[in-house]
Amino acid sequence: MRPSGGIRGTMMPWPATGAGPSSDHRTVTDTSSTATPLATIPERLHACRQALAAQGLHACLLPSSDPHLSEYLPERWQGRQWLSGFTGSSGTLMVSAERAALFTDSRYWEQAEAELAGSGIDLVKLEGAATPAYLSWLGTAPEGTPTVVVDGDVLGLAQTQQLREALRAQGWALRTDLDILEGVWPQRPGLPQDPVYEHAAPHACIHRDDKLARIRQAMIEKGATHHWLATLDDLAWLLNLRGTDVEYNPVFLGHALIELDSATLFVAAGKIEPDLIERLAHDGVKVRDYGEALPALRQLPETAVLLIDPKRLTWGLRQAVPEGVKVIESINPSTLAKSRKSPAEAAFIREAMERDGAAMCAFYAWFEQALGREAVSELTIDERLTAERARQTDFVSLSFPTIAGFNANGALPHYRATAEAFAMLSTSAGLSAQGLVLIDSGAQYLGGTTDITRVWPVGTPTPAQKRDFTLVLKGTIGLSRMKFPRGTLSPMLDAVARAPLWEQGMDFGHGTGHGVGYFLNVHEGPQSISKAVPDATMAMQPGMITSIEPGLYRPRQWGIRIENLVLNVPSPPLVQDAAPGSPEYGEYLAFETLSLCPIDTRCIDLALMRDDELAWLNGYHAEVLRRLRPHVNGDALSWLETRTRALQR
Amino acid sequence: MRPSGGIRGTMMPWPATGAGPSSDHRTVTDTSSTATPLATIPERLHACRQALAAQGLHACLLPSSDPHLSEYLPERWQGRQWLSGFTGSSGTLMVSAERAALFTDSRYWEQAEAELAGSGIDLVKLEGAATPAYLSWLGTAPEGTPTVVVDGDVLGLAQTQQLREALRAQGWALRTDLDILEGVWPQRPGLPQDPVYEHAAPHACIHRDDKLARIRQAMIEKGATHHWLATLDDLAWLLNLRGTDVEYNPVFLGHALIELDSATLFVAAGKIEPDLIERLAHDGVKVRDYGEALPALRQLPETAVLLIDPKRLTWGLRQAVPEGVKVIESINPSTLAKSRKSPAEAAFIREAMERDGAAMCAFYAWFEQALGREAVSELTIDERLTAERARQTDFVSLSFPTIAGFNANGALPHYRATAEAFAMLSTSAGLSAQGLVLIDSGAQYLGGTTDITRVWPVGTPTPAQKRDFTLVLKGTIGLSRMKFPRGTLSPMLDAVARAPLWEQGMDFGHGTGHGVGYFLNVHEGPQSISKAVPDATMAMQPGMITSIEPGLYRPRQWGIRIENLVLNVPSPPLVQDAAPGSPEYGEYLAFETLSLCPIDTRCIDLALMRDDELAWLNGYHAEVLRRLRPHVNGDALSWLETRTRALQR
Repeated sequence: MRPSGGIRGTMMPWPATGAGPSSDHRTVTDTSSTATPLATIPERLHACRQALAAQGLHACLLPSSDPHLSEYLPERWQGRQWLSGFTGSSGTLMVSAERAALFTDSRYWEQAEAELAGSGIDLVKLEGAATPAYLSWLGTAPEGTPTVVVDGDVLGLAQTQQLREALRAQGWALRTDLDILEGVWPQRPGLPQDPVYEHAAPHACIHRDDKLARIRQAMIEKGATHHWLATLDDLAWLLNLRGTDVEYNPVFLGHALIELDSATLFVAAGKIEPDLIERLAHDGVKVRDYGEALPALRQLPETAVLLIDPKRLTWGLRQAVPEGVKVIESINPSTLAKSRKSPAEAAFIREAMERDGAAMCAFYAWFEQALGREAVSELTIDERLTAERARQTDFVSLSFPTIAGFNANGALPHYRATAEAFAMLSTSAGLSAQGLVLIDSGAQYLGGTTDITRVWPVGTPTPAQKRDFTLVLKGTIGLSRMKFPRGTLSPMLDAVARAPLWEQGMDFGHGTGHGVGYFLNVHEGPQSISKAVPDATMAMQPGMITSIEPGLYRPRQWGIRIENLVLNVPSPPLVQDAAPGSPEYGEYLAFETLSLCPIDTRCIDLALMRDDELAWLNGYHAEVLRRLRPHVNGDALSWLETRTRALQR
Repeated sequence: MRPSGGIRGTMMPWPATGAGPSSDHRTVTDTSSTATPLATIPERLHACRQALAAQGLHACLLPSSDPHLSEYLPERWQGRQWLSGFTGSSGTLMVSAERAALFTDSRYWEQAEAELAGSGIDLVKLEGAATPAYLSWLGTAPEGTPTVVVDGDVLGLAQTQQLREALRAQGWALRTDLDILEGVWPQRPGLPQDPVYEHAAPHACIHRDDKLARIRQAMIEKGATHHWLATLDDLAWLLNLRGTDVEYNPVFLGHALIELDSATLFVAAGKIEPDLIERLAHDGVKVRDYGEALPALRQLPETAVLLIDPKRLTWGLRQAVPEGVKVIESINPSTLAKSRKSPAEAAFIREAMERDGAAMCAFYAWFEQALGREAVSELTIDERLTAERARQTDFVSLSFPTIAGFNANGALPHYRATAEAFAMLSTSAGLSAQGLVLIDSGAQYLGGTTDITRVWPVGTPTPAQKRDFTLVLKGTIGLSRMKFPRGTLSPMLDAVARAPLWEQGMDFGHGTGHGVGYFLNVHEGPQSISKAVPDATMAMQPGMITSIEPGLYRPRQWGIRIENLVLNVPSPPLVQDAAPGSPEYGEYLAFETLSLCPIDTRCIDLALMRDDELAWLNGYHAEVLRRLRPHVNGDALSWLETRTRALQR
């Protein structure tokens, strides 16, 4: 996979997996051109510094971001990787005349140390907010208001404002109207040219007419006449379109301007077939070139009242809004709308989960037989599992690169095996290792997006491994069983999944759960079960799909994570028509566990499980068997029956 | 008790209890003067409207607040009560030329309806934020920017800013430089004259020198040269002074200006004895008159860098800061410091808890014998329990008015029995009622503040009562057993106490826990275990004392609440010297339950209790017995032994 980054607005609880081929910094492999004039990191840094000097700038800041604040970046906006060699999905590079530093959080320290070695770039380990670290690294501003440059066309509105303030307080100026890599990066990749296609009925359950009407209703309620949409998953959802401009996320580069009686989609010429353009026109959606987006925004009439989402819009776009236009800042109505899957969408998702579960049964049946008999590596797992999924009806692609991490590799939450480095679980000579393999995988189907993590033993798990596994499982079960009032702010549920680990003085460094799209991004907001500071947009509502994925990571030993996707479903009241003021008044939600795959009971330390937890697990396995049995046969069925057997004390 | 209100900054999870004697609106009893020229609410409203007209104002807004944003208000600032007759601790009155309305939340609807009947004042039931409700009530502004007035000297800075913005958006102006009741309210009470006294060693465990040094250290870290302190508990804590200007909170009216080399206390003349003034002077604290506070703030030098807490400062004070002065907005350093009790303070608090527990044993032993034998009412409970507490060493006062609510009265979270209205539990003829009595009570001791709620059966509890009791108890136990990383934002723990109720589709309408002072306010911040939106100041730190008090309220039937105070104590790591990156890395906190009093096991439905919950309860009772046994004898000891007996299946 390509690295990804730029987590926008909502704190994503689960980092995009990263780590491409580990590269030698003296001769960087550039995918866009094999023999560039700037082959090494020091040469590239030198060119960047020349550009800074030519513009009279003190330093530049290169975030992981694109004009749509995407999590996964098209190649064109992977400049931070090109200039530093660091391939992680989150991290910011700062380059001044004399020094350069990469700022990243603990998930990437090990990887960054390896990838930056010899590059002359320092690693600044972020333990809290990034901005103070930038300022501390920059130090006191020299005389005459020296200037730092960042490309305002790819940095978020709120982040830019905050950065500008912080810099100003210490005597620095911020320039945002320059992409310093333009002219520095030879043969920089252009815009992706891949076609845009329609997400059609029956899988597209809501017509774009209805979606547009819903957005316009929200605009009217807020008093807006215009609405600018820059985020790609919002755009794809709204217009029932999909693309392949970004890996794993079935989206395409574009903007939309929605007015009360018309809508305009800005997308690169040639990406949409004429007949689809016609169908869009029929639904009141004009198509214009991607390059016309910014001019169109600049030409909004002064009478316009523009609705924008400050967390989902770049500084550059905000600057393009004419002075006289009244701006209303609010979360994109589509972000709220798409988070709530309709009953028809939920039905397709349940089908997709059965297909996904059947693929996993077939894979795991093979896996258990292959261990100790043939050569099995982390790479084999990825290949076989992907092949089983690809065989399923309506399969489109993976929803993120498979994480298959054995022992120490499983302890790296963003690990990905590569052709250069991967662990063997067993050899063709029949030798098998001992330990735990963590497999986090998922797919895009026309009828839904999956994301599931399981941990399997290779050989007999040790008591310490079983203890860790059971504590994590208790967290997954505890949260999965929760009922809670509709409207509960999702971060307020986070502690429930951590409680069994906290009780033992342990924790994990990522969020507990992220929202998941409908044949869309595997990470979407607004809800987040995490330590994020909650706001009202993160309230739990019926139809939302969220992951539950507590974990435990023992560096250089093993990693555990047990993940299911759950759907917010109304919980039937125990007292009908409770009166306001009574304790039973109000709506409650429960989680319907969508993911269907056994959880390996051989890894459980029964002494740590309470009866009610055991009952949940046995009930889940009975449901997995009931739902998957019609979809599997042969070895896969035997495996399913074995692995869903009720666990007894 | 007097009504209280004006919950500042931090959302207080537990409302101040309210409801004085229910008054007849045609002849309001005014405590400050028995025969005023304005004896009725309509007369008072008329006088208020005349004042509005004279000033050319459209409407006035009267919040529950004072110049120190106190929760409990000195009489002088109980103008909303004087003008409306509503005695609840939270509610805002708005009066225009034609109409008047009281805005309050669900806790007070029943009370407000009764107290406002016949007054001509409408009740506006708040279900969300207050400001939109004010605007909706005001309606569209007439031509010419009509003006609403509020006394900026008693309204919080942030609230005033928000209110001004909201009004402006709909064409209204806000005036803040006028106290409309001045000149309207005849014989308005003046400033309290009660003396200020010293909280002395050994109970005052940290010398004011050391406290001042700590505050100055925080000022230096933030780059401040001056710091204004307006909140009364912060002031009392900082200077080791106490007073009786407000009921239940041992504080006094004052302000402090802290500079890096001096400090000034502004307090009404005559409240501090000369020798205490001398001791303060010795410690570098000058004493000036209360009336000189505002002028002193207005005269700050332009070179000053002033630290203020925007949540703990009025608009009026903020306006008094000279233009040229640089302002740093941050939580009062004393608010953070006083929330973390020192080990010496914790030791005194444990002693206070033993005394408080012994008083309760004596009371409850009498109570159980008296039921069905003599006349027992909610008022008797208050009298007897207060008398038992008053007998204890170092007792100062109650920490809030006792709530003793039988059956339906227990379902009113802010109930207080009055001489006019109270429930009988048994009569002198020996007749005893059946039901549950909820007793929420606490005291101020020189060495700590207590606050505890228990529920006791009168007669045999019904299965439905036992179920409710047990579900609440499971919440209290679940949260009491929690361990969590140091720095966890306190609201993130709230769901743990609610989970057993949520599972049954039930909830309660108040917070789960509030901070508690050290011989200071029974409600203090910054931590709050509640649905409040958390910020970084609400992080859990060692030494904090918080209540755990889930509840369940069945209108017109009964109420349950089981409350203990808990101390944040370091939880010993299970793995010593864990390396950064390992799951065991980091500090953990556990709750030490401070409150010592049996929880009535006769109200428990054993079938709903898990083994681990039962083990916690039996362990708690063993500890209660061990700690209280040396402090009680006779009937109280027998009662203690009976009520702490281990519960078996």
